[in-house]
Amino acid sequence: MMGRRWGVGLIHYPVVDKNGRQIAAALTPTDLHDLARSARTYGVERLWVVTPLKDQQELAGRMLGFWRQGTGAGYNPNRGQALDLVRLADDLEEVLAGEAADWGERPLVWATSAAGPENGRPRLGFDRARQYLDQDRPVLILFGTAWGLAPSVIDECDHVLAPLTGPGDYNHLSVRSAAAIVLDRLAGR
Amino acid sequence: MMGRRWGVGLIHYPVVDKNGRQIAAALTPTDLHDLARSARTYGVERLWVVTPLKDQQELAGRMLGFWRQGTGAGYNPNRGQALDLVRLADDLEEVLAGEAADWGERPLVWATSAAGPENGRPRLGFDRARQYLDQDRPVLILFGTAWGLAPSVIDECDHVLAPLTGPGDYNHLSVRSAAAIVLDRLAGR
Repeated sequence: MMGRRWGVGLIHYPVVDKNGRQIAAALTPTDLHDLARSARTYGVERLWVVTPLKDQQELAGRMLGFWRQGTGAGYNPNRGQALDLVRLADDLEEVLAGEAADWGERPLVWATSAAGPENGRPRLGFDRARQYLDQDRPVLILFGTAWGLAPSVIDECDHVLAPLTGPGDYNHLSVRSAAAIVLDRLAGR
Repeated sequence: MMGRRWGVGLIHYPVVDKNGRQIAAALTPTDLHDLARSARTYGVERLWVVTPLKDQQELAGRMLGFWRQGTGAGYNPNRGQALDLVRLADDLEEVLAGEAADWGERPLVWATSAAGPENGRPRLGFDRARQYLDQDRPVLILFGTAWGLAPSVIDECDHVLAPLTGPGDYNHLSVRSAAAIVLDRLAGR
């Protein structure tokens, strides 16, 4: 499992609001911390934070500096260790170009969606997904902020991971929780 | 799996800081939202928020009011649905008394700990833990904020759940992520 080539993308645009309208979501620092800590725990190589808004990228940059080199690095070095995985990107194209450059091939791209439109994409179960990862095919897993990935992003993905379900029909996990669970299902021991 | 008698406790005191000293941690609203949403997703009956600090209980009460009956209830009813699971308590004794009154017997109490002192308690694997839950024994699972549950809390527990591990040795998940993963391992489909 060590050495898997996989990354996670946290998408802030294009995502949808509660009415299904396409929006750019604001950055939530807790998302970056939690996803970075989960990614570091489960051996994910990179966490892409995707937003085209320059002021949001600057905000992310300041936060990363604080924890990687600033006061935060002395206070809690574990945070910097996790946030070292973060890279900023304007859009999915930039992420894919970055991953292809590092890995020598385009990664498989998996969307996550609680219940949204699947756009005819087959749902990929977690057992099968683990097999892909173990076959050393590079993989990029996308999570949407706000009310989830816009249909246009899902259209660009190779698969949509199976939704996370419990015994009932409530399916409103935070993106922080959903990402943690997905990584545990794919790489937990 | 429906009808399991289980609850979650989010402990703010006594917990430890990064140097292992016992402290009372401040309430983090995101913790309440995320744990309530995870609890609702996985069929947990109650989320106990445990702090002896009255100003913190008031803060929690205002937040719960906003989402259950206030502006937030109209804006996003899913949040109120999740936060309906929350009860406030001063300490673990009050939680246990509340649970025993509802369930007619004292619950099994499970601590969670990333790496802290196990105090001689056996670690409970997730397969075995699922069996307990399916045997209809009421269970209360405790999560610690800050750097985790104080040893005195772990001492009162029947078991300590197995730590969550990935391929490496980084073990600094947020309590939000850890709780989501534990509930998924115990009740995910």
